[in-house]
Amino acid sequence: MEALPDEDFIYLGDTARLPYGTKSPQTVARYSQQAAEALAEYGVKCLVVACNTASAVGLPGVRDRIEGVPVVGVIEPGAAAACDASASGRIAVIATEGTVRGGAYQQAILRHRSDAVVFAQPAPLFVALAEEGLCEGAIPESIARHYLEPLFDGATRSPSRPDTLVLGCTHFPMLAGTIRSVVGPHVRIVDSAKTTAHAVREQLQEQLQPAAGVVAGTAGAVRFLATDSVDRFVRIGSRFLARPIAPEEVELIDL
Amino acid sequence: MEALPDEDFIYLGDTARLPYGTKSPQTVARYSQQAAEALAEYGVKCLVVACNTASAVGLPGVRDRIEGVPVVGVIEPGAAAACDASASGRIAVIATEGTVRGGAYQQAILRHRSDAVVFAQPAPLFVALAEEGLCEGAIPESIARHYLEPLFDGATRSPSRPDTLVLGCTHFPMLAGTIRSVVGPHVRIVDSAKTTAHAVREQLQEQLQPAAGVVAGTAGAVRFLATDSVDRFVRIGSRFLARPIAPEEVELIDL
Repeated sequence: MEALPDEDFIYLGDTARLPYGTKSPQTVARYSQQAAEALAEYGVKCLVVACNTASAVGLPGVRDRIEGVPVVGVIEPGAAAACDASASGRIAVIATEGTVRGGAYQQAILRHRSDAVVFAQPAPLFVALAEEGLCEGAIPESIARHYLEPLFDGATRSPSRPDTLVLGCTHFPMLAGTIRSVVGPHVRIVDSAKTTAHAVREQLQEQLQPAAGVVAGTAGAVRFLATDSVDRFVRIGSRFLARPIAPEEVELIDL
Repeated sequence: MEALPDEDFIYLGDTARLPYGTKSPQTVARYSQQAAEALAEYGVKCLVVACNTASAVGLPGVRDRIEGVPVVGVIEPGAAAACDASASGRIAVIATEGTVRGGAYQQAILRHRSDAVVFAQPAPLFVALAEEGLCEGAIPESIARHYLEPLFDGATRSPSRPDTLVLGCTHFPMLAGTIRSVVGPHVRIVDSAKTTAHAVREQLQEQLQPAAGVVAGTAGAVRFLATDSVDRFVRIGSRFLARPIAPEEVELIDL
């Protein structure tokens, strides 16, 4: 919304079946396809798979289901940004269990930079912390140390230490302050949400008509769809989006 | 299995859509009914809704769907056991967000003991800790203090302090040691799994034929059904059951 203020957005959260990060690739792919089909019915001109786990395993299936609409995942932009940010090529990725196990970040980073050394670490408790809004203080710090100290031990400027950390899950930027306090000031932290927004902007400039909203005078409209619990969507979504979401803005749908 | 060694068991884990603890009552009820219908097809003689959240909101719907089969939830036995265990009637319950919000434990305890004072505390991070197997050490201890110190502050033998704590989620007994270390030695800890097993034994003695397995010579057979990820079911299930589960024992089904 910041990168493309003239566009209209429709956001679907599969809140009935989240989290995706602990599911099998087959199930994530199936659920992602169902979500993409539901969004395609709204006549979208571009689809962002804004979940790292779904991007890691579900992109080919999503592309098959909604032909003619460009599909942007979050792994490729995140991997490209990490390769640009890293001086040493030593890149750490924290993500869900499913994203790490599938190896999508590792492969994407090596495609961009064949000399890279990738350290991938599942950090599943970060998801629960972000959902609960427990992002600062002793508890998230001790969990951040648990996941990150094995990757970032040793002297701050040691050449063997990664110089870049990819936040490979939509939830992790909520914990950015705590993560920063553990890895120290010299590590480049890459948030794939930002780099994905830029990738979408490029895609729209290259391939697509200008924003329909600009013509219709409704530029920047946002609509939310959820598969369960409008209350919880409003409560947690407002925190993630950093602006209040009203219950009337959220429509309950079934996938 | 310990309480009824002659019975055969069939266990269904809706691993594709877990956790239930953060979903709306409507969705939990719908998923619970689907699970009950799937189990009814196996000709069960008794159905245990062995999930606190599903018991809290899904029992009536489950009973409607599988008529003629007794359905035992975990809330009633847990509440009864807590009322028996408590001298003061001051009872704390930790559970998922959904279980606490629905008020099922609070109501069940007050039905058993109208003078009880119930303190209900959601403890959602305990679910993630148990799933990850991070049950001992500094991290679970700090989280246990976060949830439990507000309930159990003050002098250990203060009359205003609860004297009984109900572990109102299937996952929480995995953290019993850590929970004990926070609440101290004088609090009675009630695990609704054990009290439910006794309730099932009573139900079977009162109403039902003796175990079919005893006649067929297959007593004690166990079968596992999961809706996703046999690997993960084997890994986490073995820890919860405290015995190895082989992948061949687990059948993948769709709900």
